[in-house]
Order: sequence, then structure tokens, then C-alpha cells
Amino acid sequence: MAASSVNRALVYGGKGALGSTVVNFFKSKGWWVCSVDLFPNEEAQVNLIVDPALSWTDQESSILTKVEETLAGEKLDAILCVAGGWAGGNAAAKALVKNSDLMCKQSVWTSVLSAGIAAKYLKEGGLLQLTGAKAALDGGTPGMLGYGLAKAAVHQLVRGLGMDGSGLPANATALAICPVTLDTPMNRKFMQDADFSSWTSLEFVASLLFDWVTGAQARPASGSLVQLITKEGKTDLVTA
Amino acid sequence: MAASSVNRALVYGGKGALGSTVVNFFKSKGWWVCSVDLFPNEEAQVNLIVDPALSWTDQESSILTKVEETLAGEKLDAILCVAGGWAGGNAAAKALVKNSDLMCKQSVWTSVLSAGIAAKYLKEGGLLQLTGAKAALDGGTPGMLGYGLAKAAVHQLVRGLGMDGSGLPANATALAICPVTLDTPMNRKFMQDADFSSWTSLEFVASLLFDWVTGAQARPASGSLVQLITKEGKTDLVTA
Repeated sequence: MAASSVNRALVYGGKGALGSTVVNFFKSKGWWVCSVDLFPNEEAQVNLIVDPALSWTDQESSILTKVEETLAGEKLDAILCVAGGWAGGNAAAKALVKNSDLMCKQSVWTSVLSAGIAAKYLKEGGLLQLTGAKAALDGGTPGMLGYGLAKAAVHQLVRGLGMDGSGLPANATALAICPVTLDTPMNRKFMQDADFSSWTSLEFVASLLFDWVTGAQARPASGSLVQLITKEGKTDLVTA
Repeated sequence: MAASSVNRALVYGGKGALGSTVVNFFKSKGWWVCSVDLFPNEEAQVNLIVDPALSWTDQESSILTKVEETLAGEKLDAILCVAGGWAGGNAAAKALVKNSDLMCKQSVWTSVLSAGIAAKYLKEGGLLQLTGAKAALDGGTPGMLGYGLAKAAVHQLVRGLGMDGSGLPANATALAICPVTLDTPMNRKFMQDADFSSWTSLEFVASLLFDWVTGAQARPASGSLVQLITKEGKTDLVTA
């Protein structure tokens, strides 16, 4: 296989629970995978490590430089931003700002940086996937203000990226998956009494992303916020 | 007039164009006004200066300490967060992250900090007003991604603050004004050929906020996003 025919994905948050599953899935299909995360994912062909002590703008210049060097003139078929996290807190919470800050860094910073990478290094017709949340589409989120506002910011970013003049390469698709609850080890640990059959499996998400990238499943329109609604272990895609 | 019968407003962004107008308006009505801003507003009775070099969490502890000392046991009738700004840029813009960062600091940081102040120091039944933007309610904002995502975050914050369990004092109202274009000197300078009759005057906004605080005009429901739609010099309030 000639170098230029290798398919390339960049997974932002590639060491997280969902990110690791995505890295493994794409790699198992013969893809070249670059993980961007605070920690290396040894399964990925390339790891770009983010220094969380850096400012947002310094993270940008650091990451863009590394991506430029790594790709050496090639472009990416897919940029999958599955970084994120969850923290609660209402306005009276001691951790209101601390958690809002963390949510913005985990979701908004990574999403905007992914959009910046996409503008420069995504192929025409490629896929930029960000991660929103169904909760922030359903109204206010009083018990998790920081989480909700960060996810609403990601949704607005995706809406704009799906429109003319967004700066993405021609025919690229930008969309967000908006899960309810992902079936991660951490969620199992902290919500032991939940109904796991309403949680979305990481393998389902990885497979879905792969099918969207390859065209095995029709991609939603660019700008779509795709809710992942799981019932009795079966997941429906509902565009918001 | 006994000290406890003085009406008190905190204006976040009290040195900006809108903030200065609000400070002057409330002061002209005999109110005690505290301005929170990067620079002092000499018209305000008290100035709390924010150090922009501080992190979000350090700004929080600095401001909460200063508010606590300044109020000395009293509470606020209104917290009016009119901080903000505008910067454009799509995903391909060199300033994508720089401008997104600025927009988040000017709109999201100030709004969340205002919510935190409100949880502790707003009177029962008081008003917390934040500043959104109609543009971010109308769909994607591809040419101003950072601005749009920051304002969408503020909108989501307000939706949550308007609900039970938000942590605000009993019967408090949280709402956002969502202007199209405010008639500021800066906007006049940079958009000289615009139709100024479709811009919303700062005096109108200050008067509106005062009427909401005092009850001279019925307050929209808590959680409302109130669009300010100005045509031929007349402004209608349209709840999103």
C-alpha cells in the first residue's frame, strides 16, 4: 500500500475510555491513528502529548506544530474529538468555577482546537466529529451548570462549522455525537445502580464513527447534532 | 435613609460602554452601585478591580472576598453582568483560539462569576441579568465561532439558573438580554455605514434593567432569553 493511500485519523482524547476504543477500532481496520491526549496511548501509531499547564493559545501552537511535523504533507481523513468529562455543581457549589473551568478545558478547548486542526489538515470531504451532550439540548442544566454550558458551546460551534464560510475544507462534514450516558468503566463505578441497558456502548460509537468516515453509513448533514438514544441495548440516532 | 434601605446593584463590566450607562442610570436613581471591571469607573460608589492575568478560579476567590468585604453583611438587589465584547473568526482564522479565549473570558467567565456572586449575595427575589446575543439563538455563527459559542454557553447557563435547584436565592430571577447590536461609540466607529436606527440604545437597556429590578415593568420568567429587537429606533422585547 502506498503511503498516500493509508487512511489517517486523529483522535483527540485518544487515551480516554471512548478514545481508546476508537483508536483500537480504527487501528484494527488498518488505519494510521494519531492520539492527542495528556497521556500516550501505546496502541496509537503516533502520540501528541498536550501539556495541560499551557494556555489555550499555547496549546494551539504546540499542537499545530506537532501535527504539521507528524503529517509531513499528508492530510487526515477524520478528526474525532472524544475528549470530555463530567462534573456537577449549581451556582451555590463551592466548585462552580473550578468545575466550569475544567469542563471548558475538556470540551470547549479540545473542540475548538480540533476545528483549527481540521481547517488546516483535514482532507476535502473528511469528517470532523465533536462530542456534545443530549442533556444540553433538552433545556437547562441547573445541577451541572459548567457541564451544560460547555456542551452548549460545542453545539453552537458545530452548528457554525456546518455552514458556508466556516473555514473547513470543501465538502467536509462537521457533526457532534450527543450521548446520554456512555458505558464506561468510570460511569459503571459511580452509577452502580443505573440501568446499563440505556447506556451507549463504546464499541457502538467507534463503529458508528468508522462507518460515517468510510461511508458505510450515510453521514448526517454537516452541522448535525446527533443524539445517541439507547434503549434495551439498542441505540437510535436522532438528529436534534 | 437607613443603611439597610439603600438599594444596591453590582454591575459586572461597569466601565464598558453599556456598563457605564447602567452605573450612571442606577446612581441617578439613588442606588449604591459597585462596579466590577478591569478599570475603575469613578462614578460608582465602589470599584472592584479584576486582574485579567489571574486564572478563572483565582478571579473567583479574589472577587468573592472583595464583595464579601464591601457588602459587610448587606445583600444586593441586582447583579447586572454587561461585560462582553465581540471578535470574529472562522475555523481557518489565525486568531481562532485567541479570539475564542477572549470571548470566553469576557462573556463566560464573567457570567459564571456573576452567578456565583448571586448565589451568595443576591437578595431573595433579586435580579441576576446576564448578556447573551440574538445571533447565537438564530443558528450557527460560522464567521464568529468564538463569539457564538461563548454566547451559547451564557444562554445555557441562564436556562439552568432559571430552574429549580440552580442554587440562586428564593424567587430570584435570572435572565439574559440578547441584543442584536448595541449603539456604542465603538460600534459606530467600526460600522459607520450601518443603519443606526436598528441598534439598541444603551439608555434603553439601562432603563429596562432598572424597571425590571424595581418592578416598574413585569420581569420575564426566570431563565428567559430576552431578545432586544430594534426597528426605526423602537425596541421590542421578544423572549426566545
